Amino acid sequence: MDKALAYAEENFDGFVTELNELLRIPSVSTNPDHVQDVRRAADWLSDHLKSLGIEKVEVMETAGHPVVYAESVKDPNLPTLLVYGHYDVQPPDPLELWDSPPFEPVVKDGVLYARGSCDDKGQLFMHLKAAESYLRTGGALPLNVKYIFEGEEENGSENLPAFIEANKELLSADVVVISDTALFGSGVPSITYGLRGLAYVEVTLTGPDRDLHSGVYGGAIENPVNVLARMISALHDDDYRITIPGFYDDVIPLTDEERTTFASLPFDDQEWIEEVGVTKARTETGYSILEGTTARPTLDCNGIWGGYIGDGAKTVLPSKASVKISMRLVPDQSPEDITEKLKKYFEYNTPPTMKLAYTELHGGNGALVDTESSAMAAASEAMEGVYGEKPYFVRTGGSIPIVADFKKLLGLDTVLMGFGLDSDAIHSPNECFGLDRFRDGVRSIIRFMSIYASK
Amino acid sequence: MDKALAYAEENFDGFVTELNELLRIPSVSTNPDHVQDVRRAADWLSDHLKSLGIEKVEVMETAGHPVVYAESVKDPNLPTLLVYGHYDVQPPDPLELWDSPPFEPVVKDGVLYARGSCDDKGQLFMHLKAAESYLRTGGALPLNVKYIFEGEEENGSENLPAFIEANKELLSADVVVISDTALFGSGVPSITYGLRGLAYVEVTLTGPDRDLHSGVYGGAIENPVNVLARMISALHDDDYRITIPGFYDDVIPLTDEERTTFASLPFDDQEWIEEVGVTKARTETGYSILEGTTARPTLDCNGIWGGYIGDGAKTVLPSKASVKISMRLVPDQSPEDITEKLKKYFEYNTPPTMKLAYTELHGGNGALVDTESSAMAAASEAMEGVYGEKPYFVRTGGSIPIVADFKKLLGLDTVLMGFGLDSDAIHSPNECFGLDRFRDGVRSIIRFMSIYASK
Repeated sequence: MDKALAYAEENFDGFVTELNELLRIPSVSTNPDHVQDVRRAADWLSDHLKSLGIEKVEVMETAGHPVVYAESVKDPNLPTLLVYGHYDVQPPDPLELWDSPPFEPVVKDGVLYARGSCDDKGQLFMHLKAAESYLRTGGALPLNVKYIFEGEEENGSENLPAFIEANKELLSADVVVISDTALFGSGVPSITYGLRGLAYVEVTLTGPDRDLHSGVYGGAIENPVNVLARMISALHDDDYRITIPGFYDDVIPLTDEERTTFASLPFDDQEWIEEVGVTKARTETGYSILEGTTARPTLDCNGIWGGYIGDGAKTVLPSKASVKISMRLVPDQSPEDITEKLKKYFEYNTPPTMKLAYTELHGGNGALVDTESSAMAAASEAMEGVYGEKPYFVRTGGSIPIVADFKKLLGLDTVLMGFGLDSDAIHSPNECFGLDRFRDGVRSIIRFMSIYASK
Repeated sequence: MDKALAYAEENFDGFVTELNELLRIPSVSTNPDHVQDVRRAADWLSDHLKSLGIEKVEVMETAGHPVVYAESVKDPNLPTLLVYGHYDVQPPDPLELWDSPPFEPVVKDGVLYARGSCDDKGQLFMHLKAAESYLRTGGALPLNVKYIFEGEEENGSENLPAFIEANKELLSADVVVISDTALFGSGVPSITYGLRGLAYVEVTLTGPDRDLHSGVYGGAIENPVNVLARMISALHDDDYRITIPGFYDDVIPLTDEERTTFASLPFDDQEWIEEVGVTKARTETGYSILEGTTARPTLDCNGIWGGYIGDGAKTVLPSKASVKISMRLVPDQSPEDITEKLKKYFEYNTPPTMKLAYTELHGGNGALVDTESSAMAAASEAMEGVYGEKPYFVRTGGSIPIVADFKKLLGLDTVLMGFGLDSDAIHSPNECFGLDRFRDGVRSIIRFMSIYASK
């Protein structure tokens, strides 16, 4: 382990140079124009894994973007890690808000800026560099490792569950490790034990079958934009609770113990508000910012459009209005159930003048992971070795639906050892990843591999 | 007059061919990309007026698109018409809904399809063809005529009032004539005596200073799309009345007499509903479709946008949300006053988490014209000569703010003799103009010129 740590230290600059190659590939999975770029990123990873000396590396097809699979399995007596990551990235728009082009990585003040630098190319790359550090110094990894890197995470991991189902044997392991979450704060080590789920839909209301002149017809035609606004508006009450009938039925309430733990975490509301760039937070009545963003369900419009949206004035009464709505769910809310309940809400409230189109875009379950397992203990010890203090066990607001799938399909728990920060702007312009955290991540993973091997 | 009518009959096909030349010029005034096209349309009109033998023709500059001015003033003892029209057109989008390209006119079943065919190139062209019919047969017009054709009507006629103000002498006349309205129904002759006004604004709410990850931040951030939806939603009450404080203060209520006249007009609610392509009308409680669309004020969202509006799912919590809102006003509502009241509404309801940007895009006064004037009598007699029955005096829902300006700045009443139909889709895809109405329009104007000259 010490040799591997020293290797990582000596070769760190090279790690960053290599990562930049991967970051230059615009592997935007949700945009059909980038299909070839997503494949290029898969091929690049495959070549890179081979160059490290990993014996078995394969780009495996799915109904969508490919999965990169690799393994180094040497000793059936040693435990086996299944390392998951994703090499696809969010769309970079709005482009004009980036200080430097999203696919031309730059380092400023020790921070690497590029789409995917944190989510998740930079973080999955830490695992490859940890493996390299062992392979180039002792010749072998301290345990068996399997790698599964997908190209559809930002598009809902649509084909991954079927892939796992079809490759159960291949993917058999003792525990899953994922680095796709954030530290609790800068310099505050943490391991994530709770994730929110996701339900994401698109709704279109159609009134008149064409755009109409607002002067000639205005006053006797119900306007789909106004009606959609009314329906969206009524989705929250004055306490910022969600009004969809039955929405909270399966929400596991926070225990007093959990709320005490939340309150004891090193979190400063005012700092958070300043960092986010708002004047004030707005949570469900009775819950703190931390509870609201990680342990309570939410509903947000992600995009809305309808009618004339160009420059100047066009006096149309629009034919259609559309909205994208996503809900972050908590255990035990089911995305299918919630999607259906929202559908009923829209159906019930669609006036007789309108037609409703309701499309499920994607969904995934939330997860709560056992914090007492030997893998969690090893992860905790590994991070303590790097940071000099025990990591906190925390919940996060984001969604990694695959964690629930790994549990359901392979029976595996997941260790969520991530090194991002909420301020890394991972779905925003100027996404970034501090090189100190990239380094700490590689070091933590090197330690974790040895410690877990010996448990 | 008879010779002129015969000439128009014989040369009608040629009139259509010439009109098509003008319709091929995409003179979209609201789109800066079309600045040169708007000027081309002005030049084309100027050349055409000269070719008819009109003595004085000039393309006159304004701070925006030019005005085409022409006059044939021969005898100070004859009355003088001021004919107004506009040669600019609405944007053609959404392009994919046109059955044929908007700027490639085609005739199908006696109907001419093209952007501007009815609004207003086709209608202003009737005046030129009426003049031509006199000039090519008797050598002179039966009265004095001044023409003023502007290129900014669809953009709010921003520079026209200043132009009129600066050219009061030049524009002095006895009455204004405009063909930019619709017949009450197919084969139902009518003259418009009431127009609605317009106030058009754009509102942008900004919450966080960048798009945020909806998982990481959702649950503690107020979402500008949701907030804007709430503010839009609350602009109407359950009776579809507008809730802006003071909105109805200056509305002249409909008299019992007016309501009786409305009820007696040949109007079939069900036919209207089918023609518009909706399942049901929605009016302010207590008002008919006809009253709602012509004599009551309205508020409609013309366009809305914010967040991610591309394909697929992007889990952003948007930084901004915007809406374009237009209100149709009735006498004596003032656009400035209403714009200010709506601004106060938005300011008052903007939560402390948001910043508001409120922009006035354009406005114009409504108008009620005296139905008893000699010009109105001449117009009525002219149309009776063509249609075999007296035209109805009606109100219309659209706005021609310049009518109020002609009254205010020149002291002139306006005769609104239009030959469109509400089904001409004038601000929609597949805008059209029936050639029978184009022909009736030319004939009505020829008759009007003679009859008014002799009054």
